[in-house]
Formats: sequence, C-alpha cells, structure tokens
Amino acid sequence: MRFDHRHLLGIEPLRPDEITTILDLSDQYVDFNRRRDKHANALAGLTQINMFFENSTRTQASFELAGKRLGADVMNMAMQASSIKKGETLIDTAMTLNAMHPDLLVVRHPHSGAVDLLAQKVNCAVLNAGDGRHEHPTQALLDALTIRRAKGRLHRLSIAICGDIAHSRVARSNLLLLHKMENRIRLIGPPTLMPSGIDAFGVEVFDDMREGLKDVDVVMMLRLQKERMDGGFIPSEREYYHRYGLDAEKLSHAKPDAIVMHPGPMNRGVEIDGTLADDINRSVIQDQVEMGVAVRMAAMDLLARNLRARPTEVMT
Amino acid sequence: MRFDHRHLLGIEPLRPDEITTILDLSDQYVDFNRRRDKHANALAGLTQINMFFENSTRTQASFELAGKRLGADVMNMAMQASSIKKGETLIDTAMTLNAMHPDLLVVRHPHSGAVDLLAQKVNCAVLNAGDGRHEHPTQALLDALTIRRAKGRLHRLSIAICGDIAHSRVARSNLLLLHKMENRIRLIGPPTLMPSGIDAFGVEVFDDMREGLKDVDVVMMLRLQKERMDGGFIPSEREYYHRYGLDAEKLSHAKPDAIVMHPGPMNRGVEIDGTLADDINRSVIQDQVEMGVAVRMAAMDLLARNLRARPTEVMT
Amino acid sequence: MRFDHRHLLGIEPLRPDEITTILDLSDQYVDFNRRRDKHANALAGLTQINMFFENSTRTQASFELAGKRLGADVMNMAMQASSIKKGETLIDTAMTLNAMHPDLLVVRHPHSGAVDLLAQKVNCAVLNAGDGRHEHPTQALLDALTIRRAKGRLHRLSIAICGDIAHSRVARSNLLLLHKMENRIRLIGPPTLMPSGIDAFGVEVFDDMREGLKDVDVVMMLRLQKERMDGGFIPSEREYYHRYGLDAEKLSHAKPDAIVMHPGPMNRGVEIDGTLADDINRSVIQDQVEMGVAVRMAAMDLLARNLRARPTEVMT
Repeated sequence: MRFDHRHLLGIEPLRPDEITTILDLSDQYVDFNRRRDKHANALAGLTQINMFFENSTRTQASFELAGKRLGADVMNMAMQASSIKKGETLIDTAMTLNAMHPDLLVVRHPHSGAVDLLAQKVNCAVLNAGDGRHEHPTQALLDALTIRRAKGRLHRLSIAICGDIAHSRVARSNLLLLHKMENRIRLIGPPTLMPSGIDAFGVEVFDDMREGLKDVDVVMMLRLQKERMDGGFIPSEREYYHRYGLDAEKLSHAKPDAIVMHPGPMNRGVEIDGTLADDINRSVIQDQVEMGVAVRMAAMDLLARNLRARPTEVMT
Repeated sequence: MRFDHRHLLGIEPLRPDEITTILDLSDQYVDFNRRRDKHANALAGLTQINMFFENSTRTQASFELAGKRLGADVMNMAMQASSIKKGETLIDTAMTLNAMHPDLLVVRHPHSGAVDLLAQKVNCAVLNAGDGRHEHPTQALLDALTIRRAKGRLHRLSIAICGDIAHSRVARSNLLLLHKMENRIRLIGPPTLMPSGIDAFGVEVFDDMREGLKDVDVVMMLRLQKERMDGGFIPSEREYYHRYGLDAEKLSHAKPDAIVMHPGPMNRGVEIDGTLADDINRSVIQDQVEMGVAVRMAAMDLLARNLRARPTEVMT
Repeated sequence: MRFDHRHLLGIEPLRPDEITTILDLSDQYVDFNRRRDKHANALAGLTQINMFFENSTRTQASFELAGKRLGADVMNMAMQASSIKKGETLIDTAMTLNAMHPDLLVVRHPHSGAVDLLAQKVNCAVLNAGDGRHEHPTQALLDALTIRRAKGRLHRLSIAICGDIAHSRVARSNLLLLHKMENRIRLIGPPTLMPSGIDAFGVEVFDDMREGLKDVDVVMMLRLQKERMDGGFIPSEREYYHRYGLDAEKLSHAKPDAIVMHPGPMNRGVEIDGTLADDINRSVIQDQVEMGVAVRMAAMDLLARNLRARPTEVMT
C-alpha cells in the first residue's frame, strides 16, 4: 500500500496507484460503516480540527463523522463568526491552531490556493475540503469510488461533466482524477460557464446536452454556483433547466445503463429533474454521500499512518 | 422489559406498559447521572445525529449529553444556517444524512408531522424532539418521571395543565400520556388559547385558575408560545399574568402538597411568579431538567437494543 | 501538590504555591501535547460544559481540546443565539445546566462578577474563561508559564504591560499573578486607558513606551478592546500605533533578550508590528497559545481531583 503524502491538498499531486490505494481502503470503510458497531481506533489519540471558512453542512458532517468513528478527538471551528471578524489573518489563525498541536486539519476556504498556503505554515496533515475554484479532492475521490463500484472499473469509461464547469472545483478535481485514470471526458455546458482553453486538456466540449451525452457511461451533474458568479452571465433557472437540466429524455441519449451523479445539495428542477434524482435505478446520488464518509476515513487513516511513521516535530 | 418500537415519534403509539418500561429504566439513569463517574457504553459504536431545524438550547443539550454519556459518536447539525438556505428539501436532507448511516436521529422541526414523514424515509431510529404543535414525547416522559418520583405514583392523580394549550406540543403529549395512565386532567387557560373540541377528550376545561386548580396534585404551567401565534389573540403579559400566571395565592387552591412544573425556559412574572418557581418545597422545575437527560438516555438505550436485535439493512 | 479550590474563578484567591502547582503540572501537559498520541483519561467519566456568552474562538477551542484530550464528555453551548433570546436569566440558565450534572463548567460572560455569581448556584467546578473587565485566570496562568519557560524563573523579573489597561481583564489577572510572584510591573499606555488609582498597587505607570520599556525582561502587549470602550476616548489606529504600537525601535529600549507577548487575536500594525510578531527570536506569541491548552488541562485536572476527593452531592 503506497501513499507518500503529508497532505491531501488536491488530486493534482496524486499518482494513479495512490488513487487506487485510497479507493481500496475506502471500500473497506464502506463495509465498516454499514455495520451497526462502527467505531474504530485508527485515529485514536490524534486531534482533528475542522476549520470551515465557508458553510458546508454535508462536507463538514462527513469529515466529522469520519473522524469520530475512527476515534479522533474532533473539534469544529466555524470561522465566519469569530476571529476573522476581529481582523485576524488566515495565517495568524492557522498558526494559532497549529500551536494547539492538531494532527489533522480539515480546511474549506473561499479562496483558491488558501489551503496550500496554510499547509506550508503548519506541522500537521492538512486536508483540502474545497478551496475556491481550485480543488475538492475528497469529492473527486468519492465520485471515483461511486463510479468504480457502479461500473466495476474506473478506466476507459466515457464520462460527461455537465453544467457550470467554470466555477466548479468539483469539476476541476474530477477532471484531473478521471484523466489520470484514462477515461474519456466530455464537458457540457453553456460557453459562458466553460473555462477558456479547456479543450487543450484532451477533453471534448459540448454546448448541446443531447449531443454531449451520446453513449456516455456516467453523467455527472454540477451545482449552479451562483455565489461564485461575479458579474458575468447568470442564466434564468427556467431557461437553464430547459437547455442543461438533466431529465429522462436527455438521459435517453446516454448508454442505457448510464448512471446519474450530483455532488449535492441539488436544486431540483434546475440542474436535474426531481423524479430522475430519486430513481434508484439510475441515480447514485445517495451512494455518493455514503462513499463520502468512507473516502474521508480512508484519507485520514492513510495520512495518520504517515504521521505516525515520522518522528514528531519539536516546536519552538 | 417490553418496548417494541423502531422510533420514538410520539406518545400516541405507546402502550402504558411501554411507558412504564421507559420510566423504570430512566430511574436507573437518574442514579447514574448523579455519580461522579458517569460514562457508559450502551450506545458505543453507534452514531447519533441531532438535527435541529428550530433552536433549542436545553433540549439539544439534554440529548447531546445523553448520547455522549452512553458512549455514542454524537454530531450536532444546526440546520437553519446551512443546506436549507441552499434550497434543499427536508427529504433530501434526511436522505443525505441517512446515507451517512446514523443509528439514532434526533429531530426537531417547526412543522407538525415533519418528523413522522422523515422517519419513513430513513433506516435508523428517529426520536422526535418536538414537531410543530404535534408531539414532544421526551418532554411528556420526563414530566411523567418527575411526577412519579414526587407523588409516588403516576395514576389517579388530578393534574392541571395551564396556559397556552392550543399552541403547545408539550400539552398535547402530556395529555396523551397522562390520559393513558388514567389520571384526571384539567386544562386551564383563556378560551382563545384552548383547542376547539378538546373537552370531548374526557378532560375538564376551565377559564378560571382558582376554580381549575381546586384540589389538584400537580400544576403544569406552559410557556407562552408567541412565536406560534399566527394572527390571532396575543394577550398582554401583564394581563396574562394577572389572570393565568401562577402565584402563591392561586396555588393555595390546589392540594397543600401539590407540585409545580414548567417545561422551561420560563418567563418569570408572565407564566409564573419567580419566587414560587425557585421554592424547592413546591417547584420541581429543576428536577424536570434532571429527569430529561435520564429519560433521553433510557429512550435511546431501548431503541438501540431494538436496533441491535435486528439484522442491519443493506443499503443500495 | 497543593491546590485547595473548588473553582478557578480568578487569580486573586490563589496562593503563590498553588500557582506553582498549576504551572508544574502544565509543564507535563506541554510535553504530553507534543506527542503524537495525546489522549488521556484524567477527566474520563466527567462532563465538561463550555458556556460562552461572548464569542471567543481561541479560548473556547483551547478549553474544548483540553477537555477532549483528557477524556471528558465535552459539550459546547453557544449562548447568544439561544435561551437568552427567549428571556431566560443567567441564573435560570445556570440552574438548568446544573440539573444536567456537569462536573466542570467553563464560563465566559461579558459582565464582571457574573461567573462568581454563577459559581455560588451550582454543584460543579466552575472555571472562569473571562468575565467583563474582571478576571481571565487561565490567560494569566498561560502567560506565567510562557514567561517561566522563556526566562527560567517567574520572580524578580521586570515586566511591562502595554496598551489598554483599563478595559483589560487580561491585564488585571496578569497584574495580580505577577505581583504575587514578586515581579516588578510597569504599566504603559495612554492615561485615558489607565485605571485611576492603579499606581497605589505598587506598579509604575508610564505614558511613554521608550521610557516604560527601559530594561524590562518581558513586554506584554494587550489587545485594543474597542468593544468595551463605552463613550470615552477611542484613539485612531494610526496614532495609537505611532505612540503605543510595539516595533523594533521601541523594543530596543528593553533588555536585549526581552520577550514579546500578545494574548491574541492581534491587530497587526495597530498594537504590534507584524514582522516583530513573527520574529521567533523575540516573539513567544505562538508559545502562549500552546501553553494555553496545557494550562487548561492542568487546571481541569486539579479541579477534577478535588471533585473526586469529595463525596458527590445529592441533589433535591
């Protein structure tokens, strides 16, 4: 089992065999979480701090449960209401936390690159829980696990990522991971929500859902990130749904056994038809949530093994 | 010991012997909580999620302590500030949590029936921590335990419930429980705060406190639920206290050893005289809080035994 | 090892040998927290409740980690958003919590004396985490530990406390502690931010930083407490920094090995120059945070030993 990293900051630095290592361990944690008795000691004695500079109920809950089930001492810090208001900088906050000797620091931040910066300043393992438009590695890993379990493999699949690509760290991390694992990727969305120069990446870009979904194995819908759209084009929800919302008709252009994914929380009737989202024959949306806890347990477990293998730093 | 339920959604579905089962186990947890060392393992390995769609410091604290003292992995989710704002529905939220494999889900919601609906969608045991004007079963159970300990029995007592009956789930759950246990119930309050047709239930209804309190064993005061009064009559606090607030004079019409209860938080000088509330010879208000933790430990312990007796469901 | 107190309400009631007892045990917890495996059982079986009526990310986090690492069942209660809004008094809230049988109650409150009042009403050990302008004993203890480790002793040092003395409980608790341990104390700040009659206490008062810092061993900067300045003089930040902000030039008047302290969160460029704050040859600001967790572990451990030595009270 090989995973030689101190932090989990993004998908970019991971090798394909490291991704496979995380997913294999995650599979074990899926089984573990389905048991009635689901408390272990992989993180016992360690301190996990969740530091969320943006609200995110489900991601924070997923990391919190993952840590508690593995026996860590877990602390949440809601950062909006607190020190930030008193004028403290991100780095001051990070240094302060670091002095409390956490072992695992889970960070979400609205600015791209903020989590990488922070990781350079601290002694512990940092997990990126989403930074601006940059990366959201555990989301890409849970999506990969969901796909691998549904399709039996994670390579040579045709996968469509649909919607607001430009503002989505979920799209970016998924693109990186699925490309590393040698899948064919199609991006579908309005040209205004497509990052420029993206086709140079070896992906195919479509403006039309029916064309883009043709014969794909996996349909990944994205959330409309209105809060990240500064100034530019904001589509009306009704028009957006008409052209880019996933419904049974548009899905009929994909392979008959294509699966439907969404990172949640869903805007029903905007990005996806509510009935389709609930159709357990096509939708794996609840599986994604389940895989999320397992993937975070696996990631923290692997990082903790690496921590324990290193001598403890002595601080000043 | 018999308690054949998957959920604790209300008092309505409980048989008298099941109520007695919960109270008997609660008595043991009262003793347990008075010890210095008060951590056990009845819920070890299980995950408890507290999902409060309405603020409630004391009820949430009571459930949180109950779960932690019994060794569960406990997670609080403050639901106002989060996914709900992003447009997620109650059912989506429930399905998301369900996919994280909680064992015990404690839910408070402003809409009557919301917790029952949610319980149909999830695989775990659901505890209703208050839904709209419908039920608040653990409050009725803690009140019952307080009465049984103070009076030595929980049947053939004369019990007055006073105040804003119409908007109170506390009144409703207490009425159901005390009726099942064969007590004589008197409802006292302004006709505008009395549900229509309530006298058909076998209770006596009074508009006058002195008349209604005559020779009762127990006086249960209610909280004025101004936040639930939509449009209709809202009494001035001064007039309300004059007519319906409990003071020593009004209480003198009850039996000499009648006890005084209030679910809290109190509005001193509105529903009850402050000195009377603090009189430990008459007021059992602090006992109610103490019984609250014990009753929630007992309820979760019993539900957990039932969970462990069933094979674990395999999810999709 | 002697520490004969039920509560930790302030520095005022502590004897010098008791302060030494806390600091000696804190030294052990500093080493403990630097280990990878840092979970112990000194507080196992006990319930710790953190009740913060004022926001304080770092102090609450420090107490929360301290309790969790020592095995307590820890519960946070954010008091602003809850019962207080419903009109409950401080004492009602305290009595309610008391009925839930906490063992350790950590309280921060905006009013001086509120924590002492509360301690008289409850059965558990109360730790003052800051009350108004009165005391903040764990801050003074962590500062003392930081000084003792940096300077090798905690007596006959020349220590300057600089800034907004009048509004600072940190200054007050530090003054009490450093005076008890027989140090020479200098207070530096604008006369408008200096409490009247303070020079009677045996301290020297300065209006000029260069004069006040002359040959001191320790420079303690304070935070500008704008939120506590009601009505009176509020200096402009630029002017304040010019006259009272610590920079390398002003520090050059202190001893060459003088250390620089700040309780955090810092206003860089207002109370202190950012580069100086980060200079690990002079600044011990991160050490203060590290010592904070250790001191709180030691204080709770000692209070818990005293709790366990007494028979448990039986409540009504």
